[in-house]
Amino acid sequence: MTGDADRDAVLDVARQGQQAAIVLRTLTRQQKDRALHAIADALLASTDQIVVANHSDVAAAAAAGTDPAIIDRLTLNRDRLVAIADAVRDVAALTDPVGEVVRGYSVPNGLDIRQVRVPMGVVGMIYEARPNVTVDAAALCLKSGNAVLLRGSSSAHRTNQVLVDVMRSALDATDVPADAINLVPGTSHDSVKYLMTARGLVDVLIPRGGAGLIASVVEGSTVPVIETGVGNCHVYIDEHADLDKAVAILVNAKTQRVSVCNTAETFLVHAAIADAFVPRALAELKERGVTIHGDARIAAYVTAAGINFMPVTDEDWAAEYYSLDIAAGIVDSLDDAVRHIRQWSSGHTEAIVSDSATAIQQFIGGVDCAAIMINASTRFTDGAEFGFGAEIGISTQKLHARGPMGLSELTSTTYIVTGDGQIRG
Amino acid sequence: MTGDADRDAVLDVARQGQQAAIVLRTLTRQQKDRALHAIADALLASTDQIVVANHSDVAAAAAAGTDPAIIDRLTLNRDRLVAIADAVRDVAALTDPVGEVVRGYSVPNGLDIRQVRVPMGVVGMIYEARPNVTVDAAALCLKSGNAVLLRGSSSAHRTNQVLVDVMRSALDATDVPADAINLVPGTSHDSVKYLMTARGLVDVLIPRGGAGLIASVVEGSTVPVIETGVGNCHVYIDEHADLDKAVAILVNAKTQRVSVCNTAETFLVHAAIADAFVPRALAELKERGVTIHGDARIAAYVTAAGINFMPVTDEDWAAEYYSLDIAAGIVDSLDDAVRHIRQWSSGHTEAIVSDSATAIQQFIGGVDCAAIMINASTRFTDGAEFGFGAEIGISTQKLHARGPMGLSELTSTTYIVTGDGQIRG
Repeated sequence: MTGDADRDAVLDVARQGQQAAIVLRTLTRQQKDRALHAIADALLASTDQIVVANHSDVAAAAAAGTDPAIIDRLTLNRDRLVAIADAVRDVAALTDPVGEVVRGYSVPNGLDIRQVRVPMGVVGMIYEARPNVTVDAAALCLKSGNAVLLRGSSSAHRTNQVLVDVMRSALDATDVPADAINLVPGTSHDSVKYLMTARGLVDVLIPRGGAGLIASVVEGSTVPVIETGVGNCHVYIDEHADLDKAVAILVNAKTQRVSVCNTAETFLVHAAIADAFVPRALAELKERGVTIHGDARIAAYVTAAGINFMPVTDEDWAAEYYSLDIAAGIVDSLDDAVRHIRQWSSGHTEAIVSDSATAIQQFIGGVDCAAIMINASTRFTDGAEFGFGAEIGISTQKLHARGPMGLSELTSTTYIVTGDGQIRG
Repeated sequence: MTGDADRDAVLDVARQGQQAAIVLRTLTRQQKDRALHAIADALLASTDQIVVANHSDVAAAAAAGTDPAIIDRLTLNRDRLVAIADAVRDVAALTDPVGEVVRGYSVPNGLDIRQVRVPMGVVGMIYEARPNVTVDAAALCLKSGNAVLLRGSSSAHRTNQVLVDVMRSALDATDVPADAINLVPGTSHDSVKYLMTARGLVDVLIPRGGAGLIASVVEGSTVPVIETGVGNCHVYIDEHADLDKAVAILVNAKTQRVSVCNTAETFLVHAAIADAFVPRALAELKERGVTIHGDARIAAYVTAAGINFMPVTDEDWAAEYYSLDIAAGIVDSLDDAVRHIRQWSSGHTEAIVSDSATAIQQFIGGVDCAAIMINASTRFTDGAEFGFGAEIGISTQKLHARGPMGLSELTSTTYIVTGDGQIRG
């Protein structure tokens, strides 16, 4: 295909999505939930077909020398498909966000004003290897009344094609048009570019993946973007911290799952509590195989044999390791901690461990991020943990949605103003 | 200055804004309100100085042959300054949006989750001639805890410079840093470009002005943008319309104020009511000097002498006239009206006049816009009419804010999660 033909192909599916969105916005919850169950049924019924396609993707990735961790994320088997189908049914069980009255009141001239949730329209998802995102995103968009354009990793394109074919076929017997779910054609970078510039056809783009992917979408897109999931999270241990809680929270925040955005990448300790806290923290982190990238004052505590220690650099303060590494420093005051966090934060999650109400207030006033954890692990910044039931990503931008995004965050609003002939004087 | 020096100058004020924002986010309502009253006092005390500067701008615009309507918008006199100062005091009287708990609940593990409004940070305003926007925007941003970077029309730059100097001086005796309000240096288009690409320094850009200005900001910006104020509003007169209300609403929506975005630019009439409605509507519109750009079926009703009539073109259906012109057509069904609106709407305000609940529901389901008026004039889509007290613009995009934007729409949120040592299992 020529570039123009590629571009036309992308714009064509966007237009199909737009037509589907016209129908989707008028459907009842029941109509949408039935479609979601039909999708779950079809995914299970098509397990063999999906697994075969996935084998091809996995084999190609292996032949290309892809990292085993990435191959694991790419792999679908029967158990994972059951979990994916269950997640679709979970979405069906969630309340429909469309029609929710966000504000409602009357004004003196008798006009009745209601701000009501409506679907966005057409949502573009750009994401990396994991094919479960293909189904998750489709289910969440469908439930919120949006058409979705899916652009997964080219390494998963055989799997994604079959998943989308199966979902679209399942919709044929329902009131939801098949074009509610579409794969963006083409596996070149150009097809992403055409999607990013399909202004007027695509209402919002949600990139999910590494910092590079997200930055390229944010910089190159003329369609509005919601940035997600880049996390350089800090844990600050205040001088008024409960030591047991501080150690438990730090260890959990760093080690409970290292490859996710709400994992802690730096800890900062108030100097007044360093003697009591740092040796315990280093011992616990050592036991879990964590490498410490510490400042000179942390280094002074590194006496035990077997602690992996390296002097901290600016690259460390900036790093999202997604590994068993953590940057560490000692600060002379909460103000110094806040200043450090302001400099290096990605605006995701920042935690303070303290029993001082004053310190907590100062921390809240000083840091600017999607979520602040007070005496709790950074790992709680998550749609399921927040009770949203499902999440399409974690926004690290300030516009529209900040933090975990559930179904509500996939909607816009319309003011519905009801009068009885009112005119403006 | 070289381009680099210009760019540095813009980024420097953005950095100053960012520093001011760190202070602003922690101020109490009282501290901010005192600063607003100090600004209002200073504007009145500096009336002579402001009017002199404005004379220079007006003289330069007149010498350049500027349209008298634009010169009128540019002009500041004593009365207008009093109104501007009053508007600042009105903003002081509004509730502080910062700290508002949007959602608050506990989850099973005992975590207390609150979603709280916080300032955006640094807001960039790009706008056209009217210098009152300089003060309005500064007041609204200050009240919502944001630093503002103001980039007005170069034709008003002397006035804007004095207004900003006066406001900044007034802040010196308050707890609000002077850098809460800054003028973007430079009057070239490049200075706008530097502002639009100051990603990481500017949190949101709000362009206010004509379609060309807004499109150029949307296309060229890497900073998140909120589109405002482009309005191609329709009035649909359904077969079940009350004729008196329909005529009054149409006339009001078109003629009460022609130069604003919530003015009607097209009306569509159901064929079943055309005989009863169209002659009355044409007579009323004729009396107010309105030119009709109608389809062939409207043309059939143009019999009275003195009706200004022209055949409608696609340019008319697309037009935001901002003048005493209106496009008009007759449709065979509500569906046809909805299809027409979907094709030409700018997503601002669409009105239906009907006494049929079924028709109203169908209209709501079919059109996708910021505000839907049911038996009321399109002119009501307005922050003051909605009871917001003030408005920074009317968003016509779906992300973040849609419709009139008051103080709440100038905020983001942070999730504050309070625990007692919770870790994730």
